[in-house]
Amino acid sequence: MTYTSLVTGGAGFIGSHVAADLLRAGHRVVVLDDLSGGTAANVPSGAHFHQGDICDPGVVDALFAEWRFDHVFHLAAYAAEGLSHFIKRYNYTNNVVGSVNLINAAVNAGTVRCFVFTSSIAVYGHAEPPMTEDLIPSPVDPYGIAKYAVEQELKVSHEMFGLPYIIFRPHNVYGERQNIGDRYRNVIGIFMNQILRGEECVIFGDGEQTRAFSHIDDVAPPIARSIENPRAYGQTFNIGGDTPYTVNELAEAVATAMGVEPRVRHVEARHEVVHAFSSHDRAREILGVGTTSVPLTDGLTQMATWAKKHGPQEPSIFSGIEISKNMPPSWQSVVASD
Amino acid sequence: MTYTSLVTGGAGFIGSHVAADLLRAGHRVVVLDDLSGGTAANVPSGAHFHQGDICDPGVVDALFAEWRFDHVFHLAAYAAEGLSHFIKRYNYTNNVVGSVNLINAAVNAGTVRCFVFTSSIAVYGHAEPPMTEDLIPSPVDPYGIAKYAVEQELKVSHEMFGLPYIIFRPHNVYGERQNIGDRYRNVIGIFMNQILRGEECVIFGDGEQTRAFSHIDDVAPPIARSIENPRAYGQTFNIGGDTPYTVNELAEAVATAMGVEPRVRHVEARHEVVHAFSSHDRAREILGVGTTSVPLTDGLTQMATWAKKHGPQEPSIFSGIEISKNMPPSWQSVVASD
Repeated sequence: MTYTSLVTGGAGFIGSHVAADLLRAGHRVVVLDDLSGGTAANVPSGAHFHQGDICDPGVVDALFAEWRFDHVFHLAAYAAEGLSHFIKRYNYTNNVVGSVNLINAAVNAGTVRCFVFTSSIAVYGHAEPPMTEDLIPSPVDPYGIAKYAVEQELKVSHEMFGLPYIIFRPHNVYGERQNIGDRYRNVIGIFMNQILRGEECVIFGDGEQTRAFSHIDDVAPPIARSIENPRAYGQTFNIGGDTPYTVNELAEAVATAMGVEPRVRHVEARHEVVHAFSSHDRAREILGVGTTSVPLTDGLTQMATWAKKHGPQEPSIFSGIEISKNMPPSWQSVVASD
Repeated sequence: MTYTSLVTGGAGFIGSHVAADLLRAGHRVVVLDDLSGGTAANVPSGAHFHQGDICDPGVVDALFAEWRFDHVFHLAAYAAEGLSHFIKRYNYTNNVVGSVNLINAAVNAGTVRCFVFTSSIAVYGHAEPPMTEDLIPSPVDPYGIAKYAVEQELKVSHEMFGLPYIIFRPHNVYGERQNIGDRYRNVIGIFMNQILRGEECVIFGDGEQTRAFSHIDDVAPPIARSIENPRAYGQTFNIGGDTPYTVNELAEAVATAMGVEPRVRHVEARHEVVHAFSSHDRAREILGVGTTSVPLTDGLTQMATWAKKHGPQEPSIFSGIEISKNMPPSWQSVVASD
């Protein structure tokens, strides 16, 4: 049979790759995206694109009335831990209420075999790395709180209504089609855009905070394939790269990939988790993801080629700031000059 | 100095009692309530009543611009564990986004000395009773998930913006001014209304589920007084009655208080926690609440006198059901006949 799968956020970075993987696997793919972060050009050809906002239950319900979805891959989100403190309402509306609109529709449709949700490493907060999925989440920013609420909501909806689900917690994903014009998130994209614009790479604090960066090819395919694996149902998986790097090391690696000398500027540290990387033992055991992932230098080189072709982007300004108090000065100045 | 305190939900049951306690303590009291559950008649005289919805940031921000609030007592909520499965969007919009509008406004105002939030025993889910505040919450319904998200949000807002807070987790509160016409919540009010209407008391399942019921006089005064106690800041408190009763025992006690013979009808069990009562050691130690609380028979007699005077209420119909699948048949029939 041909599966019909909804991919929310399918015009965005991870979503467009998951949509492409599903098309390759023979699914009929419907993309729902409001183009707040993505672009129509990202939607893979062959997918049915519907421009709309998951926060509007009328949009969501109409789409479920039009299509008989077998799977929902819910990747639409505004994923910015750091900025989420200053856009709490936007964060909870998009990431909680928007997700709940999809869960309602999936329960009411009664046709959905699996609801695949991309949560985030942000649910772990200040936990001691490497984070394992058995840790009880303790998020330290509104984005992580919202993601964790949806994870809990999926468990409750499974108990109450039998809606099957799989949860992924990806982290620091980078690669082709990433929005490098977003100044608030995704350090690799920000560095590449700064280099393309001839600017210094801006590092918050001393740059010794560590992250394990995940190339999209280590993230999107396991998400797309997960629904074929009965052992994955009802599970939560960390997914992504294994090797932690400091942000200083990253800046150098990005410069090398872009073929320039590294130039960095350190600014005041912001409120963020210092060390974050997670264990992928469960993904290896159950999903069979490889023990070797795309090495950072290879992934960066691949992305740099794309970014140079794509060209520098005018950094976007987030215009709906709700709280400006205690914002990092480098953000504050942009907001203030709005 | 005279404190100016905002009480959201101050036209509702617990909120109106907290507002009255604050007035008695000399506060200037502003009540914000959309009258979705409460009535203007409940607002204590002397309070400034503003009809409006916490979900509307324009309403909230305008109120904070008009008044310089020293304290926010946030009691506005649609508190229905059981129904929350079927009104997920409404639940998260009211209980999370609405709360966040108030937190945003409190942070931006910069005048708020304490944000007092009423969470719920629902955050504990299936934890082994008696629940203590140190248990890591694990809610099993959308209402509990929403309350827990706001608890986490307050902690994050304190770390990020220095907003002081106190969290209360009351449980099964009953007493004068409770909305006995709400068919979905507050078993004591439902029983009293059923008796006033000459109906049988409807019990879900075998009635052997236990709850510790809390008279409003054991709940509202400690909430109102908490802001005067420096040791209470940043803390979470269970608050309410100590003695668990089965719902069968409760039905008998309510009938006695109402002066009628008990007549009960058991219907199919619904998805709910079987045993729920909590430890109040921390409230006793830090808040100094008494070791003796209002005995159930006294509290019920007091409320019965009020309810008889108040008269039977036409049970309200919740018209915004989002999912009707797996609803208890006794609710389903009402919704279906809408």
